[in-house]
Amino acid sequence: MFTELKRFLVGKPIATEQQSRQRLNKVTALAVFSSDALSSVAYATEAILAVLLLAGAAAVNLALPIAGVIVGLLLVVGFSYRQTIHAYPNGGGAYIVARDNLGEWPSLVAAAALLIDYVLTVAVSVSAGVAAIVSLAGVWGWPALSHYAVPLALASVLAIALANLRGVRESGTLFAVPTYVFVGSILLMIAVGAGQAAAGDLRTVTHTVPPLAGSEALSLWLVLRAFAAGCTALTGVEAISNGVPAFKPPESRNAATTLLWMVALLATMFLGISWLADRVGALPNDTTHETVLSQVARTVFGVGPVYTLIQVATALILVLAANTAFADFPRLASLLGRDGYLPRQLTHRGDRLVFSNGILLLAGFAALLIILFQANEIALLPLYAVGVFLSFTLSQSGMVRHHLRLREAGWRRGLIINSLGALLTAIVLLVLSITKFVYGAWVVLVLLPVLVVMFRAIHRHYQAVAAQLALGDQVAEPPPQPHTAILLVGDLHRGVLPALAVARSFAPDRVTAVTVAIEPEQAVQVQQRWRQFIPDVPLVVLESPYRSLVGPLLRYIDMVDAQTDNDLLVVVIPEFVPARWWEYLLHNQTAFLLRAALLLRKRKIVVSVPYLLP
Amino acid sequence: MFTELKRFLVGKPIATEQQSRQRLNKVTALAVFSSDALSSVAYATEAILAVLLLAGAAAVNLALPIAGVIVGLLLVVGFSYRQTIHAYPNGGGAYIVARDNLGEWPSLVAAAALLIDYVLTVAVSVSAGVAAIVSLAGVWGWPALSHYAVPLALASVLAIALANLRGVRESGTLFAVPTYVFVGSILLMIAVGAGQAAAGDLRTVTHTVPPLAGSEALSLWLVLRAFAAGCTALTGVEAISNGVPAFKPPESRNAATTLLWMVALLATMFLGISWLADRVGALPNDTTHETVLSQVARTVFGVGPVYTLIQVATALILVLAANTAFADFPRLASLLGRDGYLPRQLTHRGDRLVFSNGILLLAGFAALLIILFQANEIALLPLYAVGVFLSFTLSQSGMVRHHLRLREAGWRRGLIINSLGALLTAIVLLVLSITKFVYGAWVVLVLLPVLVVMFRAIHRHYQAVAAQLALGDQVAEPPPQPHTAILLVGDLHRGVLPALAVARSFAPDRVTAVTVAIEPEQAVQVQQRWRQFIPDVPLVVLESPYRSLVGPLLRYIDMVDAQTDNDLLVVVIPEFVPARWWEYLLHNQTAFLLRAALLLRKRKIVVSVPYLLP
Repeated sequence: MFTELKRFLVGKPIATEQQSRQRLNKVTALAVFSSDALSSVAYATEAILAVLLLAGAAAVNLALPIAGVIVGLLLVVGFSYRQTIHAYPNGGGAYIVARDNLGEWPSLVAAAALLIDYVLTVAVSVSAGVAAIVSLAGVWGWPALSHYAVPLALASVLAIALANLRGVRESGTLFAVPTYVFVGSILLMIAVGAGQAAAGDLRTVTHTVPPLAGSEALSLWLVLRAFAAGCTALTGVEAISNGVPAFKPPESRNAATTLLWMVALLATMFLGISWLADRVGALPNDTTHETVLSQVARTVFGVGPVYTLIQVATALILVLAANTAFADFPRLASLLGRDGYLPRQLTHRGDRLVFSNGILLLAGFAALLIILFQANEIALLPLYAVGVFLSFTLSQSGMVRHHLRLREAGWRRGLIINSLGALLTAIVLLVLSITKFVYGAWVVLVLLPVLVVMFRAIHRHYQAVAAQLALGDQVAEPPPQPHTAILLVGDLHRGVLPALAVARSFAPDRVTAVTVAIEPEQAVQVQQRWRQFIPDVPLVVLESPYRSLVGPLLRYIDMVDAQTDNDLLVVVIPEFVPARWWEYLLHNQTAFLLRAALLLRKRKIVVSVPYLLP
Repeated sequence: MFTELKRFLVGKPIATEQQSRQRLNKVTALAVFSSDALSSVAYATEAILAVLLLAGAAAVNLALPIAGVIVGLLLVVGFSYRQTIHAYPNGGGAYIVARDNLGEWPSLVAAAALLIDYVLTVAVSVSAGVAAIVSLAGVWGWPALSHYAVPLALASVLAIALANLRGVRESGTLFAVPTYVFVGSILLMIAVGAGQAAAGDLRTVTHTVPPLAGSEALSLWLVLRAFAAGCTALTGVEAISNGVPAFKPPESRNAATTLLWMVALLATMFLGISWLADRVGALPNDTTHETVLSQVARTVFGVGPVYTLIQVATALILVLAANTAFADFPRLASLLGRDGYLPRQLTHRGDRLVFSNGILLLAGFAALLIILFQANEIALLPLYAVGVFLSFTLSQSGMVRHHLRLREAGWRRGLIINSLGALLTAIVLLVLSITKFVYGAWVVLVLLPVLVVMFRAIHRHYQAVAAQLALGDQVAEPPPQPHTAILLVGDLHRGVLPALAVARSFAPDRVTAVTVAIEPEQAVQVQQRWRQFIPDVPLVVLESPYRSLVGPLLRYIDMVDAQTDNDLLVVVIPEFVPARWWEYLLHNQTAFLLRAALLLRKRKIVVSVPYLLP
C-alpha cells in the first residue's frame, strides 16, 4: 500500500544507468535556477521604500539611487560568478570553491551559511507567495482565506518537494511557464509605463488610505539600512554556478549564457519597478497592506485582467522560487555527506535519481520555520541574505586564490573581477550583519558556528570509525563460543512455542525462560502453567516494584552474563506479526524497546522469532 | 541522559504498593475536578448574549431567564449524578453506567462522546485562558503578545501534562490556589455588585466603542440557539462522578458532598454574573474584544488591583480547567483498554502510578487542535458540549435501568430524578445537535460512529488473537530444524567478523555472505578482498539497478528459502553500536529496515550482532 502510494506520488523508479539523460536546456534551466533571484523584485523595492519612509515622504527619492547601487553590485557579482562557472564545470558552489582554495574551515562556514539560507529561501518565498494569493483573494471578496495561510504554505512546500522527488526535468517543465509569464508581464508593465511616461499619460497612485510616513532623521545609518533591505534582490544569484552539471553539454558555456540572461532580466526588472514606483508615487502601506508592485501594476494597467495576471504570476513565482533551494540544498548536502561532514544517507539517490533525503530534510526544516513564524515572511526577512553574502565573499575570495595559484589563460582579468567582487560583497556583508543584527540576523550568526562545529564532529566520528574498522592485512576471526539462551515470556500461549524451539536449537540444554511480574497474580498463573506444560525449561519470575519491564530484564541478563563466563548470550524474543499494519499498534512494543536496550551491550545476541497472526 | 531528564520532569518512580495512598481530600478534589465546570462561567453568559444581540439590543433582556432555565437544568443534572456517585463508588462514568445497564453499543457511544469532549475541553479551555492573558497584556500595553498565542497555549498544555505525569496529589495542590482565588473573587464581585445595587450606586458600563446589535427577528430558533450556547456552562459537571475512587474514604460520601458544593458554586456564579451583566449593560463587543466578565468586573471595582486579580484568576482557571480532562481522559482510556476497545498500553501505570500514555495522547490531540484552530476557542466552541450532553443522556438512561433492575433502597426517588435527568438532557442534546450542526457539530456527529467502529475493530482483533493463541491442554512444540545462515555484508571490515563467527556457530558449513551492488565498482572491490581473506565462505553479489537495498535482498532470501526446503533460515546482520546516541543517525538504518521487512516472512529468523564502536 505504501509502495503504491509512493509510485503514484513520485513515479516509477529510474535505473542508475539512465542517469546522464536528465539534463536541462537553457530555457528550462533559467526557470529552474532563477526563480529565486527574479522573484525578489516582487519585494526588494518595497523593502527599500519601507526603511526610507521612516524618515518622511521626501526621503523616498533616495530609493532609485540605492536600487542603482544594488544593480551595480549585482553586475559585479554576476561577472564574478561567470568566472566560477568556467573554473568549476562540475558545479562551483561556495563550498567547493572555498574548500579547493581556502581550506576546510572557510568551506564549512560557506556550507553552513548556504544551508541556512536555502531553508530561509523556501520559508520566505512560500510565505510571501501565499501572502500574495491571500491579498488577491481579499480584493476578490474572500478575505477569510487569510485564516488558511499556514496550511496553504505547508501544502505549497509539500507540492514543490513532490515535484522535486519526481526528478529534475519534470520539475523544470512544471516551473517554466509561471516564471516566463512573470518575466513577460513585468517587462510589459515597464514598457507600457515607459510609453505612458513618454506620452505624459502616466498617472499617480490613488491611495484609499494614505501611507504613514515616519519622523526619523535621514541619517547615513538609515540609508545603509535601506540598502541592506534592498540587498535581498541578490539572493539566488549563485544558484546557476552550483548547478552547472545539470545543464546540457557544453555545460559551462550554457550555464554562463543563462547567468548573463538572468542578471540582465533581474537588473532590468528591479530598476524598472523602482523607477515606476518613484514616478507613480507607490509606497508601502501598513493599513491596506497592498504591495508596492500591486500599486504600480494597477496604476499602469488599471484594475483588470492584466493587473490580475501580474498578481497571480507574482504569487506563483514566489512560491516556485523555493524550487531553487530544492535544487541546491540536496546537492550541497550530498557534497557534504560525500566528504563526511553530514550523514552519508544524504548522498543516496532515490528512485528518481534525485537526492531524496536532502529534499525531505529541506521540506521539513522549511515547514518548521513556516509554522514557527506563522507564514509571516516579514518576520523572517531580517534572518535572510546574511548567509548569502557570507557565501558570496568566501566564494569570491576563493576565486582570487584560484587565479593566483593556477594562472590559467586570462587570469589577470579574472583576478581583477573576483577581487572587486570579494571586496564589495565583504563590505555589504559587514553592513548587513551590523544593520540587521538586532532585527534577527544574530540568530544566523549564532547558528553558523554551531553548524560548523557539528560538521567537524560528524567528520571526526566518520574518521574514527574508518580507523577502527580497518582490517589491515590480518583477519583474526573470534574463536567459537558456547551458547546460553534466555527466552522472554509474557504469557504462555502458542506464539511462545516457535521461539522456544529456536532457543532450544541454538543452545540445547542451556535455555532459561524469564518473565517480569508487573502484575504479580498473573505471573504466578504463568509460572504454574509453565511448570505443567514445559517442565524441562526453568522459568524465572522477576519482580518489578516500579512496573518497569526493561530494567529488571537487563539486570537479570547482566547477572547471567557474569555467571556464564565465556558463553555467547542469546536473548530470544517471540514477536507477534499481525495481518494488518494498524494492528501493530495494539501490541506491546516491548520487543522493540528491549532490542534497542540490548544492542548497547556487547556479547548479547538478540533473536526475534516471528509468530504470524491470521 | 534521557532518564535524568525524565526524573527531573516527572520525579522519582513510585512503587506499586504505595498506590492507595494517593488520595484527595474534598477541598483539593473540588479544585481538581471542578475547574472545568466552574471556569465556564467566564464565557457562558457572553455566549448567550452574543446570540441574542443578533436580534437587537432589546432582546438581551432574555439572557437572565435563559440563564435561569440552564441553572434549573444544572440542578437536575447535579442531583442525577449524586445517584450515580452512590450507585458506582468505583467511578461511574457514562461508559461504565451505560455498559452495565444498556449494553455494549450505547457504552461505546458514550465513551466516544466523552473522549472527544475531553480533547475539546483541553483545547477550548487553554485557548480561552491564553486569550484572556493576551487581552490583559493588551490592556497593559503589550499587544504583541497576541503573536505568541499558539506557543503559549502549547506550553500550557505541556505544563499541565507534566503536572499530571508527576501524579494526582501534587497536581491537586498546584491547582487548588487559582481555583479558590477565582471563586472567591467572583463571589466578592457579585456581593459588592449586589450591595451597590441595593444602595443605588451600581454604575453602567462605559463603552469606548458601542457594541453592534444585529437586526434579525427575535424567533424561537434564536432563543434556542442562545440556550444552546449557554449550555456550555454544564460541561464538566460529570467529572466528579468519574473520579470517585480518587477521593479519600468514605469515597462516595465525600464525592457527593463535593458535587453539591460544585453545583451550588456554579449556579451562584453563573446567575450572579448574568444578573450583573444585565444590570450594568455589559455586552459582547466585536470591536474591542473585551469580554463581558471583564466589563462587569471593571464596572463594579473600577480599573484597579481587584479587577486585575479577577482577570488573572480567570485566565488561570481557564487554563487549569483543562486539568479536569487530564484527570478523566486517561482513566476512561484505561477502562476502554482493559475491556479491549483501545490499545492495552493505555492501561499501564507509569513511574508515578498515573496512566502516562493516556496523558500523552490527550496532550498530543489537544496540541493538534490548538495548532489547527490557531488557539481560537471561538472556532472550537460549536464542536463542544454535544458530546457532553450525549454522555449525560446515556448515563441517566443507564441509571433509570439501574433503578428498575436492582430496586435498591430509595429506588423510586432515584428513578424519578434520573428519568427527569435523562428526558431533559435528551431534549437539550437534540436542541444542541440541530442548532449547532452547521456551525461545526457535524464534525463530532461524523467522528462518533468512526470511533465506535474503531473500538469494535480493536475488540475483534484482541478477541481473535486470544482465540488464536489459546493453548488448550496440548502443547505441541515444533520439531527441530537444520539451520542455514545468510550473512549480510556492506563492506569487509572488523565489524563483520563477530557476525561471521555467530553465523558459523549457528549453521556450521552452511553460511553464505551476501552484498548488494548499489555502486558496482565498490562491490567488485569487496568481492576481491572477501575471496582473499575469507575463502571458505562464498560471497554472493546482488545487482540493484534501481539502487534499492531491501528489494534485491528479499528476493535472494526467498530464493534460498525455496531451495533449502525444511531449513530454518537465519539472517545475520552486523550492527554498529556507536558510543554516543547522535552517532546512530550517521549510520545506515539498513539493519532496521531489513528486520522490519523480514519479520513479515514466516520461518526467517533475524539475528543482529552488535559491534561496539569506541
